[in-house]
Amino acid sequence: MEIIDRIKSGDVRTVSRMIRNIEDRVEAAKAVIKEIYPHTGRAHVIGLTGAPGAGKSTLSDALITNYRKQGKTVGVLAVDPTSPFTGGAILGDRVRMQKHAEDRGVFIRSLATRGALGGLADAVDDSIHVLDAMGKDIVIVETVGTGQSEVDIMNNAHSIALVLTPGMGDEVQTIKAGVMEIADLFVINKADQKGASKLYRELQRALDMATTYQSGWRPPVLLVENIADPDTFLDRVDELREKLDEHYGILRDQAILGERERRKARVQLMNALQGAVFEPLVQSLNDSGKLEEMLDTLVQKQGDPYSLAEEIAGRYLKGAGDTG
Amino acid sequence: MEIIDRIKSGDVRTVSRMIRNIEDRVEAAKAVIKEIYPHTGRAHVIGLTGAPGAGKSTLSDALITNYRKQGKTVGVLAVDPTSPFTGGAILGDRVRMQKHAEDRGVFIRSLATRGALGGLADAVDDSIHVLDAMGKDIVIVETVGTGQSEVDIMNNAHSIALVLTPGMGDEVQTIKAGVMEIADLFVINKADQKGASKLYRELQRALDMATTYQSGWRPPVLLVENIADPDTFLDRVDELREKLDEHYGILRDQAILGERERRKARVQLMNALQGAVFEPLVQSLNDSGKLEEMLDTLVQKQGDPYSLAEEIAGRYLKGAGDTG
Repeated sequence: MEIIDRIKSGDVRTVSRMIRNIEDRVEAAKAVIKEIYPHTGRAHVIGLTGAPGAGKSTLSDALITNYRKQGKTVGVLAVDPTSPFTGGAILGDRVRMQKHAEDRGVFIRSLATRGALGGLADAVDDSIHVLDAMGKDIVIVETVGTGQSEVDIMNNAHSIALVLTPGMGDEVQTIKAGVMEIADLFVINKADQKGASKLYRELQRALDMATTYQSGWRPPVLLVENIADPDTFLDRVDELREKLDEHYGILRDQAILGERERRKARVQLMNALQGAVFEPLVQSLNDSGKLEEMLDTLVQKQGDPYSLAEEIAGRYLKGAGDTG
Repeated sequence: MEIIDRIKSGDVRTVSRMIRNIEDRVEAAKAVIKEIYPHTGRAHVIGLTGAPGAGKSTLSDALITNYRKQGKTVGVLAVDPTSPFTGGAILGDRVRMQKHAEDRGVFIRSLATRGALGGLADAVDDSIHVLDAMGKDIVIVETVGTGQSEVDIMNNAHSIALVLTPGMGDEVQTIKAGVMEIADLFVINKADQKGASKLYRELQRALDMATTYQSGWRPPVLLVENIADPDTFLDRVDELREKLDEHYGILRDQAILGERERRKARVQLMNALQGAVFEPLVQSLNDSGKLEEMLDTLVQKQGDPYSLAEEIAGRYLKGAGDTG
């Protein structure tokens, strides 16, 4: 397909349109992903996650500049759990896009949910493939770091950095959303603020308790602040980038990259199965009016969801033995 | 079943065990839910959501006391996206449990994720049914309000209150996680803090923009603060409770309750279908070794997830026509 060549040559308009299609779940995008898939796996995918206001955008922006100095090209996906209220516009994103607009080595896009359950992790995954196939050395995925959907999104990354700030309510609560145990690096941002050293100690204590580390990689905790001293900030970003490189190196050397790739492949396959099995089932139930019928039954309390679901499974699935 | 009678009579030990079984996804729990289902639908289910540190527990606690004064019994489910790191203990919860320990009209439990994707909304849903069948007039579901999974959880509620605090990073970011548009009430907690009136104005402006309100219910915005003046705090909580009652009344009167029940039934059915269709499929692929085979194919880039998923769908699903 011509579009594959255009993506591989890094054509920005084609890539932009492709990502929009992925976001809108246009069926044709799937065919392109199928073709692209063999050309992926080169990029170092970095996940950057943390609570709103933790300073992910600023950090990401500094990382882009830093990677560019290393001669690496960078793609950024800012994942935005959009609501109709805010219209999905990420203001900081537009500013960044302008800042790097002249640089062909940087590609930044935001990705929004369009309501589809589970669809976002899927869209992120496919978009990473596009940026990877487009030739970006580094793909940074930014997202708000709470909730299972964000964990799913982060599972697409090789190296996951969790950005925390001191004093954002109860620290333990903030970091307990399942992101903590998948993080490969911790960044305490706004480290000039009160409570930074307390948070640092808490994190180290939690890391002490997690006795085993795959490959001996103990997640480092970096203290970053970007207000008082811009030079120190850039030094810390440089350190963050080095740690990310180091982590990727270890993944590569110890064949753990393969394990991560396998984990990613698993997530991808599950998402694809949802799309191929579950969604058509729901669609078919909807089209035939059966779904509304079942909802009537439930609302009138004349049946329960489990029994109805089992009935559907019986009608819809071939014997389990056939799948082997 | 004897257990159904014991739940309906409000036996705390049976209910506790039942909820633990739901959490652990014990198969027997499903059979109980099937039997319970016809005895549900009496409780007013209130969702209380907001960022960590927003003060949900304090507010919930005050609501419990207030509802008790109205002679209503209350069940509370504190939903906790646990991580192994923190062990899932909600400290504030234990304190509350002790406070209301003597009161047979209050039942508080925390629910944790045990890693299962999508399993939490499911567990919350089933647990609501148990508290409902147990005879609780009010069921309060508390959860951290960001991410799709939390939206799914909130979809089980009749009346959803979003708790916000001034100055928690970027307000617009904080409230954009899809919870904003499902909220029926907004509570600005810690309203004595800087930025409260700005947040109030921002919310009102956002609500002005959302032109249509189902049934003419425009979500009220309540300002609450619980430090300077305990009496004012209790007045505000009383106002919150009144607004919740009023909202439920409107749902009832205008047959919108039916719509909400239908939306809830839809979510319940989808979750049950996932359990009956998708999970056995994955299990079967796993047991037969086919899953590992496919992961090999993907990691070696000799196939793509979409094609593999379509192949599985072809093998596993009966013709869509059979489902009508």
